[in-house]
Amino acid sequence: MSALESLRARLAELADLSSLGRLAAWDQRTMMPPGGAAARAQQFAALERLTHARATSDEIGAWLGDVDGDGDLSDVDRDVVRVARRDWEHLRRVPVDLAAARVQASAEAQAIWQVARAGSDFAMFAPALERNVELAREYAACFDNGGHPYDALLADYDYGLSAARVQEIFGPLAQALPPLVAEAAARPAAPDLPVPVEAQQAAVLGVLRRLGVGDEQWRVDVSPHPFSLAMSPTDLRVTTRYTGASVESLLAAVHEYGHALYEHQIAPELARTNLGRGTSMSVHESQSKLWENHVARHRAFATVMAAEFATAGVAVEPDALHALVKRVRPSLIRVEADQLTYPLHIVMRFELELALIDGTLAVADLPTAWNDGIRRLLGVEVPDDARGVLQDIHWAAGSFGYFPSYALGCLIAAQLWECLESELGPQDDALRSGDVESIRAWLGEHVHRHGRRLDTEPLVARATGGGIDADPFLRYASAAA
Amino acid sequence: MSALESLRARLAELADLSSLGRLAAWDQRTMMPPGGAAARAQQFAALERLTHARATSDEIGAWLGDVDGDGDLSDVDRDVVRVARRDWEHLRRVPVDLAAARVQASAEAQAIWQVARAGSDFAMFAPALERNVELAREYAACFDNGGHPYDALLADYDYGLSAARVQEIFGPLAQALPPLVAEAAARPAAPDLPVPVEAQQAAVLGVLRRLGVGDEQWRVDVSPHPFSLAMSPTDLRVTTRYTGASVESLLAAVHEYGHALYEHQIAPELARTNLGRGTSMSVHESQSKLWENHVARHRAFATVMAAEFATAGVAVEPDALHALVKRVRPSLIRVEADQLTYPLHIVMRFELELALIDGTLAVADLPTAWNDGIRRLLGVEVPDDARGVLQDIHWAAGSFGYFPSYALGCLIAAQLWECLESELGPQDDALRSGDVESIRAWLGEHVHRHGRRLDTEPLVARATGGGIDADPFLRYASAAA
Repeated sequence: MSALESLRARLAELADLSSLGRLAAWDQRTMMPPGGAAARAQQFAALERLTHARATSDEIGAWLGDVDGDGDLSDVDRDVVRVARRDWEHLRRVPVDLAAARVQASAEAQAIWQVARAGSDFAMFAPALERNVELAREYAACFDNGGHPYDALLADYDYGLSAARVQEIFGPLAQALPPLVAEAAARPAAPDLPVPVEAQQAAVLGVLRRLGVGDEQWRVDVSPHPFSLAMSPTDLRVTTRYTGASVESLLAAVHEYGHALYEHQIAPELARTNLGRGTSMSVHESQSKLWENHVARHRAFATVMAAEFATAGVAVEPDALHALVKRVRPSLIRVEADQLTYPLHIVMRFELELALIDGTLAVADLPTAWNDGIRRLLGVEVPDDARGVLQDIHWAAGSFGYFPSYALGCLIAAQLWECLESELGPQDDALRSGDVESIRAWLGEHVHRHGRRLDTEPLVARATGGGIDADPFLRYASAAA
Repeated sequence: MSALESLRARLAELADLSSLGRLAAWDQRTMMPPGGAAARAQQFAALERLTHARATSDEIGAWLGDVDGDGDLSDVDRDVVRVARRDWEHLRRVPVDLAAARVQASAEAQAIWQVARAGSDFAMFAPALERNVELAREYAACFDNGGHPYDALLADYDYGLSAARVQEIFGPLAQALPPLVAEAAARPAAPDLPVPVEAQQAAVLGVLRRLGVGDEQWRVDVSPHPFSLAMSPTDLRVTTRYTGASVESLLAAVHEYGHALYEHQIAPELARTNLGRGTSMSVHESQSKLWENHVARHRAFATVMAAEFATAGVAVEPDALHALVKRVRPSLIRVEADQLTYPLHIVMRFELELALIDGTLAVADLPTAWNDGIRRLLGVEVPDDARGVLQDIHWAAGSFGYFPSYALGCLIAAQLWECLESELGPQDDALRSGDVESIRAWLGEHVHRHGRRLDTEPLVARATGGGIDADPFLRYASAAA
């Protein structure tokens, strides 16, 4: 085998192992009986150790050296080699002991966090969080590239972005969005629609079928936290949840559909290479948010959703449904936030974790900073740390650098949607009849097919003609307000 | 790490990879949308390659060498090392090219077999079968231990048994069973009971709950061919199938429960070692057959099953139910055979594959030999090869040596049941009230807990005081006839 063939065989193996890991994760969250938990944790650990060993082995370095001599690689192969080199060098920068210490500290901190959150006891959690911050800083120091230490953490989720760039993007958002939220929230709140769970289930399946979800390549299941995982581009699994009489199940299902469609439409030639998955957390989130914010929350699409509820035996006025899914109400909990307040929850978390990492904010001062931020950005008082600084698992898991992608996804979604409508024309008529074929095709062409060949901001630039930009989202928010 | 610790760590890794493979297999057969098939096949291949590399590596040989010096191993560790050495030497006997050729020939032959079976065209299948036989003989030649070449094939499913020993066991069975079958089949056949699928589903869950199946550690799903796989000893997955108005779903579910219970009751100290699974195909089959033949087909248990049908709204007389599940009718298809004719289907397959492997039967003569055997043992005429020699996948898959375990399982089950009742007393009263606690405990103590520490016949000897023996099954058959 040539160096390229050897490299590609190893990358295929790593892709297969990654698929098995996703299957184990999907099963854990949908099917596994509780008794399977301990063994499953060991299986994940074994897979992680093996994957790390296979992804960092010396052979890869040798193949990367030899392939350089080849010269006339195809465009795809050049990208395969470029990203393989980047990943290999990245993984090998981190000492094994440090990686193990992070995993262990993360597991311990999550266990403490669960108890601390239940008792709203931040002091109990603080030492574990301090340990996570310290290890994150050590990890960042492995990549001394002259920038902010946060840049290295961000790179694990969104390669190529920097703390400075995120600040530049989030700055205008933090200024302009709160007044729009206040304006929208001042209007009379649309009332809840009491839709029985059975009708929700039927509507979820009906709406997803309209979006192209069929039995040949999809599964729709239930999980406590909705998620989506692609076992392969033609084996797509989305979940939603049914929590009493609400239409949240429908928004969640459409959101997860957006994630899955991304993996579905990656160019087949990238399958089982290192390029055959979504390029970053923020682009992935842009895909879920595009379908959630710009399709499911579109006035025209309310007609389709109402029709599916009607088929399920529940009469809902499209206007009432649209008003409900667009309702804006500042609140305490990120995962329950509406489409306008959501990015503000994220902007604050980004500011706080940046300050934790560069040492300008002490862990002890975090609850006060949190409560001040929520008051400043959302005008809400935090009654206790359980509903404040302790609500998310990310810091307990040591996942600093993850949060920004949630808000960047909202912004990129709005940019893509503006571009899509400017190229294809307004989608009102198509959405009213539930025809999303043009939207799927446009996203496939401009976003999905590239896989990891383009990083976040180059991909956005190529699709929209510019970098990440808060203005389209702010226009979306103005229209809503 | 000491040599023993290193060895144990590798064995734990292999156990974890094996669990992931079982998860992938379970998912493939219960949950996976059709679009996932191609990628899943690649994932299996990747797992197989990686597992083979990790199971045959030189390091294991070094650890096995070093551990010899230690001297004072625990009993379990001595068995861990003994079986690890056996497995490692076994795997390394086979050249990589031969192993790969067998896998490829198996895949190709299965594809041809599917078409050939659909068209009842043995001639189309014959060359692929010849190739499988040839490769099986090459494989057997890797283990030139002076015995019959079939012994090496048998060892992959039932270590320690030999062709001669199986002939010795099956001989009396092939003589004594056909007249008993004829006697039972001569009686008026019990009529079918038309039980709607919904009632069957309720009864399956109700009966399994009586046997100890709870949501904490079990799943019950549907698949075209019922099976059972343990993700771990506390994550057990059984399936059944519902094919129209029949009680087959119930027998299949109890059969699969028997397999799963075996894995469930293996001693916890053997978890994630090379000993932490059922010891052989025939002992595994003995566990499913014990629950199917001796519990589900027990007169007293018909009361429990009828009660569950009644709860599901279907009135069934226990006597009628018992007569139905005990009904004997010689037929063409192995997987549809009743409890008495089933071993005869197997005895014939064993004789034929033994002759194929030692070269005394040519592939071209196989259909005639098959049809003669069915006439001789079951008194039935085979109308075409689709319902004859082409019905099973095993030879297409190259799995010679697998068939005997199905009949050995029936025999061992009868032996264990006689022993169990002689030690615990007749189980009629307990079964009438659905109390299987003593049965579970007895099997746990005498069979399950040992895992792979005892091979098939030593385990049977320890549990029953003698080797594998057809007499108890023949007594069971006489009582039925």
